[in-house]
Amino acid sequence: MNIARLSSADDGFDARFQALLASEPSGDDKVRDAVETIIAAVRRDGDAAVLDCARRFDQEQADSVAALEVPLSACQAALEGLDQPTREALETSAARLRRYAEHQLGQSFDWTDEDGSVLGQRVTALEKVGIYVPGGKASYPSSVLMNAVPAKVAGVEQIIMTAPAPAGALNPLVLAAAAVAGVDRVFRVGGAHAVAALAYGTSSIPAVDKIVGPGNAFVAAAKRQVFGQVGIDMIAGPSEVLIVSDGSVDPRWLALDLCAQAEHDELAQSILLSPDAAHLDAVAAVLEQELKNQPRAAIIAESLRGRGALIQVRDLDEAIALANQVAPEHLELALADAPAWVDKVRHAGAIFVGALSPEAIGDYCAGPNHVLPTARTARFASPLGVYDFQKRSSVLRISPAGAQKLGPMAAALARGEGLEAHARSAEVRAKP
Amino acid sequence: MNIARLSSADDGFDARFQALLASEPSGDDKVRDAVETIIAAVRRDGDAAVLDCARRFDQEQADSVAALEVPLSACQAALEGLDQPTREALETSAARLRRYAEHQLGQSFDWTDEDGSVLGQRVTALEKVGIYVPGGKASYPSSVLMNAVPAKVAGVEQIIMTAPAPAGALNPLVLAAAAVAGVDRVFRVGGAHAVAALAYGTSSIPAVDKIVGPGNAFVAAAKRQVFGQVGIDMIAGPSEVLIVSDGSVDPRWLALDLCAQAEHDELAQSILLSPDAAHLDAVAAVLEQELKNQPRAAIIAESLRGRGALIQVRDLDEAIALANQVAPEHLELALADAPAWVDKVRHAGAIFVGALSPEAIGDYCAGPNHVLPTARTARFASPLGVYDFQKRSSVLRISPAGAQKLGPMAAALARGEGLEAHARSAEVRAKP
Repeated sequence: MNIARLSSADDGFDARFQALLASEPSGDDKVRDAVETIIAAVRRDGDAAVLDCARRFDQEQADSVAALEVPLSACQAALEGLDQPTREALETSAARLRRYAEHQLGQSFDWTDEDGSVLGQRVTALEKVGIYVPGGKASYPSSVLMNAVPAKVAGVEQIIMTAPAPAGALNPLVLAAAAVAGVDRVFRVGGAHAVAALAYGTSSIPAVDKIVGPGNAFVAAAKRQVFGQVGIDMIAGPSEVLIVSDGSVDPRWLALDLCAQAEHDELAQSILLSPDAAHLDAVAAVLEQELKNQPRAAIIAESLRGRGALIQVRDLDEAIALANQVAPEHLELALADAPAWVDKVRHAGAIFVGALSPEAIGDYCAGPNHVLPTARTARFASPLGVYDFQKRSSVLRISPAGAQKLGPMAAALARGEGLEAHARSAEVRAKP
Repeated sequence: MNIARLSSADDGFDARFQALLASEPSGDDKVRDAVETIIAAVRRDGDAAVLDCARRFDQEQADSVAALEVPLSACQAALEGLDQPTREALETSAARLRRYAEHQLGQSFDWTDEDGSVLGQRVTALEKVGIYVPGGKASYPSSVLMNAVPAKVAGVEQIIMTAPAPAGALNPLVLAAAAVAGVDRVFRVGGAHAVAALAYGTSSIPAVDKIVGPGNAFVAAAKRQVFGQVGIDMIAGPSEVLIVSDGSVDPRWLALDLCAQAEHDELAQSILLSPDAAHLDAVAAVLEQELKNQPRAAIIAESLRGRGALIQVRDLDEAIALANQVAPEHLELALADAPAWVDKVRHAGAIFVGALSPEAIGDYCAGPNHVLPTARTARFASPLGVYDFQKRSSVLRISPAGAQKLGPMAAALARGEGLEAHARSAEVRAKP
């Protein structure tokens, strides 16, 4: 088994640990320039440019963008075509996600101050949202649910899903998930041209207010470029898990958790911290065994070799301190007294408390969203949630007494900034 | 007076209205490339690169970045040096802002489901935040309050402010505002190099988790480029006001409101909609008069000429529909029955309800934040608030009964996605 073994007591540990975490944000100039050209073409030529890209990049044969729309009846048919256990799993997952999301609904507020002025904030849903679903191996039905359900709970009026289908047809599970989640329109379009169409609108594809969902380097670059014209979610990096174990948990469970993370792709990161060296040895041994019969063994091995690590720490306090440095997307607390440690965690996208709470359950059906901040962004970013599909407007209704008090005050501050028109605009309201 | 007069009944009105709103996001390749070079230098050479930039761009004479730190005692001294009314205005403004912000504090939640699993979300403050304050004429003390107070209310541990001082010294009002708001450290550094230093850290300037605050094209480009390494607030465009008037409000008040918006800069946008043509004439006449004695008349005239408009609409319903199309940063409802119209507004950064609620009062001291989404982004973005300085972590603690139920369900969905290690990781938790 080829996975780094480190100890926090080693000379040079800090530097090695930093090197392990280092990941350059994908910023390829060629990709950026190619995407700029595509976006400009879609803005200029609309459907014609989208169709041209779909033919060139995805071997689409359709003769119009309208023909790339997948009717909702096809989504419903895909759902009805599922075997019962899969359908049930999809529906239960959506229901649990919905229940969790409902706790996130933002509430408007207002109050009347001592002068009778009413101050508040109104929370409303975004009107239209685009969900990008990648093609190929990363075309996950669970991602459709995770992106669409919170938007639906927020009250978004129209959810438009785009997904490339280079092979000609979309994954039936993805279509079924769209039906379960209540997606309103589906287009068999992908890549930077799909993002551009959602951002600027074409005759066939409506412009949306925000675009969410993962994608390849072209999609990520396109989202970065249309940011401002529309809202976007975070630009996701490779997925990561950091596990803190006290040695009380079955090594096979943890080895499987590391493999689950690693099987996503070669850049995924799986790190295990424990003060117990023998426990780390045991996990390494099971990893060795597991790799012999995992269908995605090659990806797992490459990921563990390049970005994985089993790290011996002095104690659990040090482990948590390192976790806070990492700000991992997924943090598993595989500890006998796990709940007692939760409050020591400063930064993590999701915290999995105790041995029975592996990331894989959270990925599919526990309720919380699996779209989480990666690449240390949990220091400032949050899981995808209802709040990403709501926006706020301040509301100010100044009373006559309020205007008497606030007008002159605003005028004084405005004059301090050299803004005389502001001063007069505020002042005239204070006159009797 | 040179300001466009339109009527929604005109042929070609829609196209003219769209042209009025059109604004290209600032995306200058030369600026982008220059900023890339600066960021790379700061990442590589730290303080040395920052100092080099400060000397070249801001004529700084200091011989170290440490020497560019402004001691908090200087901020306190600046506050104590203010005349009493100004100090009081600053302190009252901060207190009102704080009171409003406290309503925005996000709350953690959790609940126990029927299987005994605990699901929740933990809301915590960001650790360190950088506030960029522009130099020159846009160096506004009110912006310091608006950016720092919500961060403080959120519980941010360290607020680091940077502001260029090409003239050698910072505006004492800005320093006083930093003292009132509770800023922790102040550096006399600006430009892309300040943003790079805050994003990546140098020996003298600590790395932060998020950078907020307005700036010139270089600062905006730098924020865009470091997004991902740190969080950023929106990239602000020119400021805008849209006023809907039924003719019941003194034309001078509205003329002053239009001037107040226009005096920010030549690209600021001021639009007035009314069904009452005589009222629009009256406003135009006052504008004419006002321009004769406004200190910033040249800027106002240029802004009104290039981007302003007085628009006659068929009725107030049409006015609100147009406002929703614009999604203005500031929306003034100068209507006799203004409160009745608020719920018809779909998109606006801030809604000013009634004739006594001009934007200028909101800019300084009403309580709501004056950092608002510009350039139609109110369709998906919100005013700066406490929520911008908090982040969320999902928390999952699966019970034995929960693992029995969710393990196999997650496994079924994982196998549907071809992720066998995920399936096994979930499944082993369900075994007795």
